[in-house]
Amino acid sequence: MKKFKLLFAALLFVFIGAAQQPIKFHSIQGLTILGRAFPNQTTYRRFPDSLESLLRKPVWQFSTNSTGIAIYFESNSKQISAKWKTGDKASYPHVAATLVKGVDLYALDNKQWYYVGIGKPNNPVYQEASIIKGLDGSVKQFLMYLPDYETTDSVVIGIDSNAMIQHVTNSVFANKKPIVFYGTSIVQGASAMRSGMAYPAIIERGLQRETINLGFSGNGLLDSMLAVIMSHMDAACYVIDCGPNLTPAMAAERTLPFLKLLRQNKPTTPILLVEQIDYPFARFVSSMDEKIKLVNQHFNKAYTTLKNEGDKNIYYLPSKGLIGEDGEGTVDGVHLTDLGFYRMANAIKKKLQTILK
Amino acid sequence: MKKFKLLFAALLFVFIGAAQQPIKFHSIQGLTILGRAFPNQTTYRRFPDSLESLLRKPVWQFSTNSTGIAIYFESNSKQISAKWKTGDKASYPHVAATLVKGVDLYALDNKQWYYVGIGKPNNPVYQEASIIKGLDGSVKQFLMYLPDYETTDSVVIGIDSNAMIQHVTNSVFANKKPIVFYGTSIVQGASAMRSGMAYPAIIERGLQRETINLGFSGNGLLDSMLAVIMSHMDAACYVIDCGPNLTPAMAAERTLPFLKLLRQNKPTTPILLVEQIDYPFARFVSSMDEKIKLVNQHFNKAYTTLKNEGDKNIYYLPSKGLIGEDGEGTVDGVHLTDLGFYRMANAIKKKLQTILK
Repeated sequence: MKKFKLLFAALLFVFIGAAQQPIKFHSIQGLTILGRAFPNQTTYRRFPDSLESLLRKPVWQFSTNSTGIAIYFESNSKQISAKWKTGDKASYPHVAATLVKGVDLYALDNKQWYYVGIGKPNNPVYQEASIIKGLDGSVKQFLMYLPDYETTDSVVIGIDSNAMIQHVTNSVFANKKPIVFYGTSIVQGASAMRSGMAYPAIIERGLQRETINLGFSGNGLLDSMLAVIMSHMDAACYVIDCGPNLTPAMAAERTLPFLKLLRQNKPTTPILLVEQIDYPFARFVSSMDEKIKLVNQHFNKAYTTLKNEGDKNIYYLPSKGLIGEDGEGTVDGVHLTDLGFYRMANAIKKKLQTILK
Repeated sequence: MKKFKLLFAALLFVFIGAAQQPIKFHSIQGLTILGRAFPNQTTYRRFPDSLESLLRKPVWQFSTNSTGIAIYFESNSKQISAKWKTGDKASYPHVAATLVKGVDLYALDNKQWYYVGIGKPNNPVYQEASIIKGLDGSVKQFLMYLPDYETTDSVVIGIDSNAMIQHVTNSVFANKKPIVFYGTSIVQGASAMRSGMAYPAIIERGLQRETINLGFSGNGLLDSMLAVIMSHMDAACYVIDCGPNLTPAMAAERTLPFLKLLRQNKPTTPILLVEQIDYPFARFVSSMDEKIKLVNQHFNKAYTTLKNEGDKNIYYLPSKGLIGEDGEGTVDGVHLTDLGFYRMANAIKKKLQTILK
C-alpha cells in the first residue's frame, strides 16, 4: 500500500497542482464546539471535570474520549489540515485507528452535509495531517469530528495563509435543543471506520441538530447517576440504547427505575427506548437469541408501565430490521460497521423525525 | 473495552452454557479451497509459484496475500475455532486488523449465506481464536475466508472432539465457472472490516458462484502480463476495475491493448469493464472530478471500439451510483467501507446477473 500511497500522492500532485498557499495554523478559540453535555465546558471531554467524583471510574474514563465532539466553523481556504494530540491507550483488532484517533471533516453543500476528508493518525500521540486540498475557495461551513475512542488534548486547524476561519454566522444547528444518546460501545461508535459514522453523528448531520454521545464502551449499564446527570441536560429528546451491556436480570431491575429517575427532572421531554439489536450470530445461537428477547421483553414492560401511567412522551423502537436482516451489519457479530451504523441511523432518524415534528 | 470484553464473555458463559466438548483441531486436507487462480494450487496464495518470475515484484507480493481465498466445508460441530499463521508486514491506520489478518466465517441457512463469526487476530503471527459457540449441532455448510491483506501460511480448524468436518457433498458452487475480478486495493478489499466484505466476496455469496480476487493494492495497472495470465484462467466472466490506480494517460494507452490481449485466448468470455468510482471528495475538488471523468472517457472509448468491432461479450458499468451518492461509502475518500462495498457489490451483482443469465 506504500507504493499506492506514492502513486496516489503523485496523482494528487498532478491533478490538484503545485501552486498552494503556505499553511497557517489557527487556534479553535471562538469556534463552536458541538457534542458536550453541558454549556461552558472548556475541554474536548464529554463531561465537565466536576462530574468525575460522581461517576463509576470506567464511565468517567470513557467520558474523557472526544466521542461525538465536533468543531463547527466556516472558512474559504482551499486546503484544510489539522494538528491534534490524542491519548494512546486504545487499540483493538476490530477497530481501525482512523476511528480511534482520527479526525473526520464534513462540509455543507446545498444544505446537506457531505464527507470531505479525514486526518489519518500516523503517530502515537502528536498527529498532523492534510485533510483536503483543491477546494474552490468559496466560504463553506465545516464540521470536524474529533477522535471517537481516545482523548483529544489539543487541536489546531491549518488553512491557507491568506484565508479566513471563523465562527459560523448562520448556524444550521441554532435554536434547536440537542438529542442525547446514552448507551454502550455501539453508541460510542464501535466499529465505524471514522468518527462521523457513529450513528449519533450520522443523525446529527441528517437532522441538522446537535447530538450528544453518551456511549460508554461496556458501561451502558443504566447507572442511576447517569439518569440524574442526563436529567440536568437541556435535551430535545433522550435516546436510551443500553441493551447490549445488560443481562436480562439487569434489564428487569434497572430500566423502569432509570426512566423514572430521568422523569423526575424532565417530566415531558421525549424519551426513545431502543431495543437491543439482534446480533447476526443469534440466527445460529439460540441461547443468544433468547437473551436478546428477554432483555427486550423487560424493556417493553418498562415502556408499557410508563405508558399506562399516562406518560405521553415515552417512545419505543423495536429491534426488527434496525441493522438490517441480512446479517452483514457488524464486524464481530456485536459491533457495527459503517453499513450497520448507516442502517441504524436511518431507522432511529425516521423515528426521531416523528417524535420531534 | 476490556471491561466490556469481560462482561460479554460472562454473558456468553451464562447464556451459552459451560457444558462444551473439548476442541479437536483438524487439517484442512481434503476440503475445498475457493478463490485461487488455477487448479491444483497447493498454498493459500492466489497465484502458483511458477508465476513469480513473470510478474512485477509488487504484484507478486500482493498476490501472496490470501485475499478472497476461502475454505469450504461442512460440519456438525457446536463450536468452530481456528489456528492460523499470518504474515506480519501490513498495518494501516485506515484498515482494521480483522481485515488484514482475521478469518471470517459464514454458514448456509435456507440456501443463503449468513455471517457466523470472526476469528480476531490478537498476535503478530500465530493466531488462535474461538469463532462461534452454541450452534445447534446440525450439519451445516461453512465458508471460512482467510486474511485479506496478509499471507496465510497455515490454518487448522477446531471443532468439538465428537463432531465431524468434511468435504461438502452437495456443493452450491459446483458446475459453475468462477468470476475473475482484477483491480486495485479496492478490489482487494480495503477498507472492509473483515474478509467477507470485500465486494468480490459479497458477490460470491450472493450469486453462489466462486469469485477469484485479483486485486493488487496500488498495482491495478493493466499490466499486459495480467491479461495473458487471466486469459489462461477458466472464467465465466472477467470484471476489470483498475480506474483508481490509473492516470488518464495510462487509461488511454493501456485499456484497449489489455482487453485485446485478454481476447486473444478468450474471444467470447464476457468482460465487464467497470468505471472508476466517483470519490466522494471529488464533489469538492474539481481537479479530481476531471481526472475521474477523463479516465472513464478512455474506458468508454475502449469499450465502444471493441463493441464496434463486433465484440458481443464486452459490457460496461458506469460509475454513477456505484458506491451511492451520499458520499458516505469510504473511509478516506478512496477506500470503501462495508457500506461502500455493500453498495458496489449490489450494483455489480445486478449487472453480472444479466450477463450470466
